Amino acid sequence: MTTAPAAGMEVVEGVLAGRPREIGRALSAVERPGGAEEILRPLYARTGRARVVGITGPPGAGKSTLVQRLAQAYRRRGDSVAIVAVDPSSPFTGGAILGDRIRMSEIFTDPGVFIRSMATRGALGGLSRATGDAIDVLDAAGFGVVLVETVGVGQDEVEIVRSAETTVVVLVPGLGDDIQAIKAGILEIGDVFVINKADREGADRAAAEIVMMLDFTPDRAWRPPVVRTVAPRGEGISETIDAIDSHGAFLRATPEGEERRARRVRGRLLDLLQERFRRAIEDGAARPEGLEEAVTRVVERREDPYAAAARLSGRLLRA
Amino acid sequence: MTTAPAAGMEVVEGVLAGRPREIGRALSAVERPGGAEEILRPLYARTGRARVVGITGPPGAGKSTLVQRLAQAYRRRGDSVAIVAVDPSSPFTGGAILGDRIRMSEIFTDPGVFIRSMATRGALGGLSRATGDAIDVLDAAGFGVVLVETVGVGQDEVEIVRSAETTVVVLVPGLGDDIQAIKAGILEIGDVFVINKADREGADRAAAEIVMMLDFTPDRAWRPPVVRTVAPRGEGISETIDAIDSHGAFLRATPEGEERRARRVRGRLLDLLQERFRRAIEDGAARPEGLEEAVTRVVERREDPYAAAARLSGRLLRA
Repeated sequence: MTTAPAAGMEVVEGVLAGRPREIGRALSAVERPGGAEEILRPLYARTGRARVVGITGPPGAGKSTLVQRLAQAYRRRGDSVAIVAVDPSSPFTGGAILGDRIRMSEIFTDPGVFIRSMATRGALGGLSRATGDAIDVLDAAGFGVVLVETVGVGQDEVEIVRSAETTVVVLVPGLGDDIQAIKAGILEIGDVFVINKADREGADRAAAEIVMMLDFTPDRAWRPPVVRTVAPRGEGISETIDAIDSHGAFLRATPEGEERRARRVRGRLLDLLQERFRRAIEDGAARPEGLEEAVTRVVERREDPYAAAARLSGRLLRA
Repeated sequence: MTTAPAAGMEVVEGVLAGRPREIGRALSAVERPGGAEEILRPLYARTGRARVVGITGPPGAGKSTLVQRLAQAYRRRGDSVAIVAVDPSSPFTGGAILGDRIRMSEIFTDPGVFIRSMATRGALGGLSRATGDAIDVLDAAGFGVVLVETVGVGQDEVEIVRSAETTVVVLVPGLGDDIQAIKAGILEIGDVFVINKADREGADRAAAEIVMMLDFTPDRAWRPPVVRTVAPRGEGISETIDAIDSHGAFLRATPEGEERRARRVRGRLLDLLQERFRRAIEDGAARPEGLEEAVTRVVERREDPYAAAARLSGRLLRA
């Protein structure tokens, strides 16, 4: 909390006025561990209006081009669009790759489109917390649609997708050969399935296999549509938007929408509680008595970590 | 804790006797959320003897072949070797890819080599907890060397590498072009750098660039060696092992070894405390009063998540 309150207020007002500069500053703030609170608290009451759509899929599925085409289609019908490209970067890739790809594209010059890439940093789970907060910032800034693109490798990204209302899973023909490897997780995540690069051989088979997998769970209230696209040619884009819209209508018309919202908030509160808990210990604000002694005992193998954690935990938590 | 105590004891005894079947069962147990405690507690006192080496690097760097060659070299000098291939799998890849690759290799038939692949599942951070526990199981089982291979994408894997004593970062020529993208993180992680595929053009440049990056932090007590390898031909393997050995000697001869061990244990205790904390809330054992009301208020935007978390956290944590 080194930022003076005045600066924070300026950012908050700028976000609410939809000014790109302040939106950018707010997004940088929420990426910093502990930096979100000051910005988010006054903004939160103004959220809840944007349509939040997650786009995920394996590397090479053509997600960036698809996202670009979806953004253009939303723009044509008058919605302002924010794109958050979440890159599960490592020290090896250095991040921001998805964002850079989008930045080079034609939509970058459209003032009705705001693009931001976010990369992994800080504590475990920090990226999903930061992405949720970034969505709130963009929502409060008045964007009609927020598209969250993740490369879909690793559990962090699965968590991120859960903060979207509607999740589009993008697959490509040829992945069909590995269809056995696609775990049930993907079916739980996907509200809409897109077979991109559908002009390639194997598109029929890929679509048929997704449909078959969906048939195994016939009791779901929402049956995810399977759409075929050729993103660079714009084919199937309006069908994808229709499918996303249908899912939105389903969420509004059934208890599912309310249930998802509650589930998301509960997960988010648990994330925040967990983050506060760890920070309290690391800062020493709630350091359990005997932590350092326990470290020594565990290092010397006089106690196992589970026993130590159980003891320390009892000293930290109220019954 | 549905396993009968007898079954747990049988597994523990089997692990201590080095029996592959029980080692496998113990590893499956620690992969399950909450499944580690029963196995780990009696085993922990018997850990601390294995040499734990992490191998990480970008996809395509040839890590699996390198790991295989390192394992063979350790075998030749009489060490038994366990390999843990950690796959940051997503629902898309389905995991176990690294492990499968190794499984097809010649070392698979050597009874002195134990191979296991672990994939992402469960809660955030769960994989790094499970990997640390798996290392303990293999350590207690008496393996002289435990090689932990991760694909090095995402923060989970960075965390995993931190549970190794010595970390080998594997790079390849051509990555030199993106050297600016290799963040400081990699320098902090690497105790030994390997330029694999060193018969390719650009190997000199890649090595020179790593050396240059290391020159920027000249005040470190340990200067990571940079080794060149051509893993399929076995070139540079003994030099890599020498470098790993040198780092081991450094850890034993200086306070650094002890400090790292304490840091690792502290991180692990915090992970376990965090896991217990979350589980306590999810199970309702430590459900903060008013959690459900808070969820409703946040869903309805009558309260922001940060305010709700602060209030709930105060009810959970002892001062």
